[in-house]
Amino acid sequence: MEDVRVRKIVLDVLKPMEPSILEVARNITALEGVDGVYIDLLEIDKKVENVKIAVRGKNLSYFEINQVIESTGATIHSIDHAYTVREGTPRYEGFD
Amino acid sequence: MEDVRVRKIVLDVLKPMEPSILEVARNITALEGVDGVYIDLLEIDKKVENVKIAVRGKNLSYFEINQVIESTGATIHSIDHAYTVREGTPRYEGFD
Amino acid sequence: MEDVRVRKIVLDVLKPMEPSILEVARNITALEGVDGVYIDLLEIDKKVENVKIAVRGKNLSYFEINQVIESTGATIHSIDHAYTVREGTPRYEGFD
Amino acid sequence: MEDVRVRKIVLDVLKPMEPSILEVARNITALEGVDGVYIDLLEIDKKVENVKIAVRGKNLSYFEINQVIESTGATIHSIDHAYTVREGTPRYEGFD
Amino acid sequence: MEDVRVRKIVLDVLKPMEPSILEVARNITALEGVDGVYIDLLEIDKKVENVKIAVRGKNLSYFEINQVIESTGATIHSIDHAYTVREGTPRYEGFD
Amino acid sequence: MEDVRVRKIVLDVLKPMEPSILEVARNITALEGVDGVYIDLLEIDKKVENVKIAVRGKNLSYFEINQVIESTGATIHSIDHAYTVREGTPRYEGFD
Amino acid sequence: MEDVRVRKIVLDVLKPMEPSILEVARNITALEGVDGVYIDLLEIDKKVENVKIAVRGKNLSYFEINQVIESTGATIHSIDHAYTVREGTPRYEGFD
Repeated sequence: MEDVRVRKIVLDVLKPMEPSILEVARNITALEGVDGVYIDLLEIDKKVENVKIAVRGKNLSYFEINQVIESTGATIHSIDHAYTVREGTPRYEGFD
Repeated sequence: MEDVRVRKIVLDVLKPMEPSILEVARNITALEGVDGVYIDLLEIDKKVENVKIAVRGKNLSYFEINQVIESTGATIHSIDHAYTVREGTPRYEGFD
Repeated sequence: MEDVRVRKIVLDVLKPMEPSILEVARNITALEGVDGVYIDLLEIDKKVENVKIAVRGKNLSYFEINQVIESTGATIHSIDHAYTVREGTPRYEGFD
Repeated sequence: MEDVRVRKIVLDVLKPMEPSILEVARNITALEGVDGVYIDLLEIDKKVENVKIAVRGKNLSYFEINQVIESTGATIHSIDHAYTVREGTPRYEGFD
Repeated sequence: MEDVRVRKIVLDVLKPMEPSILEVARNITALEGVDGVYIDLLEIDKKVENVKIAVRGKNLSYFEINQVIESTGATIHSIDHAYTVREGTPRYEGFD
Repeated sequence: MEDVRVRKIVLDVLKPMEPSILEVARNITALEGVDGVYIDLLEIDKKVENVKIAVRGKNLSYFEINQVIESTGATIHSIDHAYTVREGTPRYEGFD
Repeated sequence: MEDVRVRKIVLDVLKPMEPSILEVARNITALEGVDGVYIDLLEIDKKVENVKIAVRGKNLSYFEINQVIESTGATIHSIDHAYTVREGTPRYEGFD
């Protein structure tokens, strides 16, 4: 599986109010292999925010992303989407 | 049927929580002829996840994809979509 | 009608579980004049699948497509869409 | 009105089961000035099909299209759309 | 207001069954400054059709368009849309 | 704020039947800095029309737009959208 | 995190009627690192407007944006969206 790459992961996450989604996005973006992070607030419930975190990159490590997220006191509820490719294959429209 | 190619298969699959959809996507992507794999979580039900697995490639083997999926303890519920082409014919917009 | 061509046919079909939609798609794609086949599963009902079969090509023969479909034990319920052109005329966006 | 052209007509038509929409589409496409025909099945009601027929061309004759449709035993229920242009004017996006 | 141009007008119109929307579209298209006309049938009510007439051009005269429409026995119920520009300014996507 | 420009304003306006939206659109378009105006009729209520007025330009003056609108006997109910940019920055898709 | 950039922030804000969303948009656009601001009115409630403020730029400072917003008497209710990138990485369609 040397040439298999994880290009996108979308996570459903429960987080405390602090740090803000801006801080979480910045921390994940700082990981090696990450190109960009997109976080949407889905729901606010007293002291908990339910957010969707989308991570894009050349090759993503779920282990490291999870570490960053848990270090902020948040919990991954589920992996909602995964996109993997063989390096060097064509991009498909609407497929990434 | 020498020049007939299976370019895309979409499967409705029931899987245990482990391995994660990330691992399943990586394993299918490692098969010969596969370019990329896209998995969406549809529903979580106690210890079972219902997922949609979309596989793209130059020529896909359902036999091998099924083998990889079953080796993870998952079951294919149905083939929801198939796309086949004659090699060398033009691409149609919105048709792949 | 020498220069009239059937470019696309969409069929509503009832089929037994076997052969799979992958096999049906491959068999239709092997016909002369066919460029690609796109099959979507609409509904599973006990031992019958209701599928939508879209066929694209330079000039399609309904007679041959019907023969292949019936040889698999399936039945065409209706022709839901037909697209014909005069050869050499421009393509219209959203019209094929 | 020398330079006025009818580029598109969409018709709501009631037709008997035979001939099929494929035959109707081929017959209309064979008319002079027609580039392509797109027929969608809207509803099947016992021995009658309600279909939408879209005709594109450089300059369409409603008189001839109507003749072909009536010769197959079908009836035009209404003209749902007409698109006319002055020859030589620019194409507008989303306007044809 | 020398350099102000009316580029598009959309009208809500009530018309008798005859002349057909094809004839109305052709008559409006024949007016000076008109590039194309797009008519959609919205509703048929006994002897009256409710139609939406969209007119595009380099500079439209509401006065003349109204004259043509009324000469066919139809009535403009409302002006639903107007688009005006200063000549020579850039086109905006989704703004015309 | 020398290099800050107001590029788009969308207004919710109540206006008398006369002058028509065509006249209002033409009057606003004649203002300096305006490139185009797009008016949609939202609702007709006895002698009042509720319209949405979208104004695009290189640098818009709300003061002048309001003056023109009030001079026709209409009232701005609310500013529904504002889009401002720093001159010389890139355009974002779906952001203007 | 030297090469991590905040490219987009979307805020849910409660503001008094004055200053108008035009003034708020202009003030935020004047901040360093901001390219453009897009404000939509969501709801008017007596003397309070609920607005969505989207800010784009090369590198945004939440601290400064919050300062400008609070200086107008408005309050940020929630950060609804954050988008961060590593400088120099490719743009993804539909990802910004």
